[in-house]
Amino acid sequence: MRDTHITSAHGAGGKATATLIDAVFLEALRNPLLEPLEDAAVFTAGAERLALTTDSFVVTPLFFPGGSIGDLAVNGTVNDLAVAGARPLHLACAVILEEGMDVGELRRIVGDLAGAAARAGVSVVTGDTKVVQRGRADGCYITTTGVGLVDPDLRLGASMARPGDAVLVTGPIGDHGITVLLARGDLDISADIRSDTAPLTGLAARLLTATGPHSDHGRHDGHSEHGGLRAMRDATRGGVATILNEVARASGVGVVVDEDAVPVRTEVRGACELLGLDPLYVACEGRMVAVVAPEAVDAALAALRADPLGAGAAVIGRVVDEPPGTVLLNTTFGGTRIVDLLVGDPLPRIC
Amino acid sequence: MRDTHITSAHGAGGKATATLIDAVFLEALRNPLLEPLEDAAVFTAGAERLALTTDSFVVTPLFFPGGSIGDLAVNGTVNDLAVAGARPLHLACAVILEEGMDVGELRRIVGDLAGAAARAGVSVVTGDTKVVQRGRADGCYITTTGVGLVDPDLRLGASMARPGDAVLVTGPIGDHGITVLLARGDLDISADIRSDTAPLTGLAARLLTATGPHSDHGRHDGHSEHGGLRAMRDATRGGVATILNEVARASGVGVVVDEDAVPVRTEVRGACELLGLDPLYVACEGRMVAVVAPEAVDAALAALRADPLGAGAAVIGRVVDEPPGTVLLNTTFGGTRIVDLLVGDPLPRIC
Repeated sequence: MRDTHITSAHGAGGKATATLIDAVFLEALRNPLLEPLEDAAVFTAGAERLALTTDSFVVTPLFFPGGSIGDLAVNGTVNDLAVAGARPLHLACAVILEEGMDVGELRRIVGDLAGAAARAGVSVVTGDTKVVQRGRADGCYITTTGVGLVDPDLRLGASMARPGDAVLVTGPIGDHGITVLLARGDLDISADIRSDTAPLTGLAARLLTATGPHSDHGRHDGHSEHGGLRAMRDATRGGVATILNEVARASGVGVVVDEDAVPVRTEVRGACELLGLDPLYVACEGRMVAVVAPEAVDAALAALRADPLGAGAAVIGRVVDEPPGTVLLNTTFGGTRIVDLLVGDPLPRIC
Repeated sequence: MRDTHITSAHGAGGKATATLIDAVFLEALRNPLLEPLEDAAVFTAGAERLALTTDSFVVTPLFFPGGSIGDLAVNGTVNDLAVAGARPLHLACAVILEEGMDVGELRRIVGDLAGAAARAGVSVVTGDTKVVQRGRADGCYITTTGVGLVDPDLRLGASMARPGDAVLVTGPIGDHGITVLLARGDLDISADIRSDTAPLTGLAARLLTATGPHSDHGRHDGHSEHGGLRAMRDATRGGVATILNEVARASGVGVVVDEDAVPVRTEVRGACELLGLDPLYVACEGRMVAVVAPEAVDAALAALRADPLGAGAAVIGRVVDEPPGTVLLNTTFGGTRIVDLLVGDPLPRIC
């Protein structure tokens, strides 16, 4: 790591974030559970297999069309559990408040948090509240941590992709990022869009069931490492492009995406064009990327589309042999280009 | 809650914090696991009983004699598990960084975090990194969440105290709070003290073993609800006074403390006198308060004193019938006064 000081790029979820995590955090804290750097760590606790995940939310503004930091703090963490194949059990919630924050605003945020928790079927069972001086935070920052139960036989992860697999997204991408960006009011653009923030617990469960084991080898749990589902990831900070790069690197495969197949709302596409952003890098908060074995694609699509949150599900690409560790985009104009990890931070504090 | 805006008192761990938590957080998020407001929530996950706890650390300065925010973020969370009677398993760690933070400083903090985790026998298995603009944080804030395993038969808590029980502390109080306050350099006082930040896992385990069940009723696990240990609490923000008030209220009992019996280092007592602080309200980060049945006091003291972290253990008071919900102090000068919950915030951002 060459940087001597933290920049906003270290928080963008792209290349600089990956370097910071490798060089500073993983370097000092290395252990086999941390090392995969998945959205959630999965480990054994007594007789059970648990998933644990944590996220700090520093989104600005605190409220935006479709949600608030309160919804986001629940859905973001619940989704990290869901894509790990875990059944979310409980949340912990730690809040850092800025002196001078309006208590009515805080009540609305905690109300949103409670509503999102109820929708996701989890409860907040423990918490913490700290206050820092005026100007040392930005209203409030919320850190949620989720614990969930994982089927002992389930094996999912970014390293499980194999050539021939299909790459799916569960709906139009980029809604959240563009909504938050426009909600800041710095730009003279308005568009009728709202954040896609939502809990993916139900959708993940449908997908797991639909892509269950294809051979009967004595299991009775509905899933196995031989099932058709290789990986699920929610496409938050860094967007779909970042997830696909993580899959390509972790599995040592290539990923080819067809630009025309990627669902993007007209309003989001328009705003992206005006702002010079690529929707593939724009955060979603209620969409996931799934990597699915070829024989399970039809079942996966049908299962996703049966859920309102997956109504716009589509196959956007496929896993290939070569070149390993690389994501390629077949563009609308017939060209091909590399989709690399994000450099810099076009969308600071989006979650 | 009458306040319309957040003040530093809401983060002090005293009366205003309790009101904020009740009126805003508990009100919206109420559930039977959250309601006891213990340091850790204890719940069933499949075949296991787990403890979950979370804390944000916003201490300033980031480094102080005896430790740093890195040590604190591990020990604080590990201790919340330990006093719940849990065996800490793993930690999640979410970091909010201020743009411009020195990477070398961050490395030192993460190094301290790794060292503290190793000493406490836990690993950081998942994490998150966010960056906010310069001036929107203070170097870094760290939120750690811990998960631990709890003996299925163990029943501990602030509501378990009974008249006749003894109240113990495991060593001199107030070292951490005074050390951090002096490290800020705003005061023209210097003293040869250092933070007591330390993991209490070992000490808690010793105490549990030493105060195990007194009657043989077929249990083989070493503890039970009939054991001599009623409650353990680490005396952080709000100090020993806050813990004793929580015990008095939760159990509907009185607590009487003998001022002369409370261990306070000469340097801490001196600084408290100069600053007009009562050591009973000053945070420790490596001390616990234990409530112990009378017949288990000798065994508890012996077990604590056999550990270097408990060498200064002492009985400081006792649980009484009347007046319920109240903590009384027999002062050095022969008087008696009520020790109430902290009002205001004499020591902001101490952890």
